Amino acid sequence: MNFSSKLLEEAVNALATLPGVGKKSALRLALHLVQDTSKKSERISSALLKLATDIKKCSICANISDDNLCEICKSSSRNTNLLCVVESARDVMAIEDTRQFKGRYHVLEGVISPLDGIGPQDLNIDLLVSRIKNESIGEIIMAISPTIEGETTIYYISKLLKDSNVKVSIIARGVSFGGDLEYADELTLGRSIASRIPYQVHS
Amino acid sequence: MNFSSKLLEEAVNALATLPGVGKKSALRLALHLVQDTSKKSERISSALLKLATDIKKCSICANISDDNLCEICKSSSRNTNLLCVVESARDVMAIEDTRQFKGRYHVLEGVISPLDGIGPQDLNIDLLVSRIKNESIGEIIMAISPTIEGETTIYYISKLLKDSNVKVSIIARGVSFGGDLEYADELTLGRSIASRIPYQVHS
Repeated sequence: MNFSSKLLEEAVNALATLPGVGKKSALRLALHLVQDTSKKSERISSALLKLATDIKKCSICANISDDNLCEICKSSSRNTNLLCVVESARDVMAIEDTRQFKGRYHVLEGVISPLDGIGPQDLNIDLLVSRIKNESIGEIIMAISPTIEGETTIYYISKLLKDSNVKVSIIARGVSFGGDLEYADELTLGRSIASRIPYQVHS
Repeated sequence: MNFSSKLLEEAVNALATLPGVGKKSALRLALHLVQDTSKKSERISSALLKLATDIKKCSICANISDDNLCEICKSSSRNTNLLCVVESARDVMAIEDTRQFKGRYHVLEGVISPLDGIGPQDLNIDLLVSRIKNESIGEIIMAISPTIEGETTIYYISKLLKDSNVKVSIIARGVSFGGDLEYADELTLGRSIASRIPYQVHS
């Protein structure tokens, strides 16, 4: 590409480092920002700078936070007996959006994946073990994706916690609500039959 | 969405103002930047800030530029007799990438579009007319998209220039190279037959 401006070129190259943004999309975004009159560019620039410099991790659960402790760990209205173990801060948001869980979280920041060179020591597993020792947690819910890496991580953590008094559970797997049985994969459908649940008629 | 961090929320809202970026994509990008360790966020932030504050428009052709004059208008090796009129700075880049044009450009910054409230006074048409008066331009090539708005703009400019000595031409329209006739639209195919060109055998 022949850029008429070095500043434009640098903006395009910087935007193209974002996942899923190629050179052509980056150019479209940069030209949009050049032509924009509503100070979008300044706003994005300042938000991303703050993201880079000011954002913290919660020292208890490793969730993304503005302070040393996240809002959930700070809150006195959460059930401290229940701990939900998730892969990423994105998953905390997804579960919070359901409004079905009132306990607290622990963010592993990844799953065990030997092919990508990620072992248990690269995740916040030590932190989890020390939380279970020091806090009065009755049950941990493993809300981790049912992939090979996810299953490995669940297995590893439950083996670690075998001798502790904490109950380990996993989130239910089965066909999605609104999903068509026809399109469910064989493994999911097979498991959903094997782990069938009694149907309760509400009177 | 339940954000665990105000800084993250602001970054997501800022990124979601970009065209084609929804809330979910913006969240994906922001979380990627939070987890990234290579200072991507700072780099994008500084590039976009410079884009907002330092970028200029060429005072001759209205192309995007780092200085008051763009590289093309400054260059002594361009043919000053030929002027290519385009809709946007993006089109200058597209034509420069072909390496087929050695003249100079004039960027209109849009086309006449009454439905969007864009009239001739909103475009750099006055600037174009004064360039034709003051510079020794022999031919202007209208490299404008063959849409209704584009055709209107071409018609308007050529009427304005009727009494000047400048020759006005438009870029050839027809079927694309590598395109399948079957998929060419009727208007393009019909016009390409009407404006057929003699075939020359190179001996």
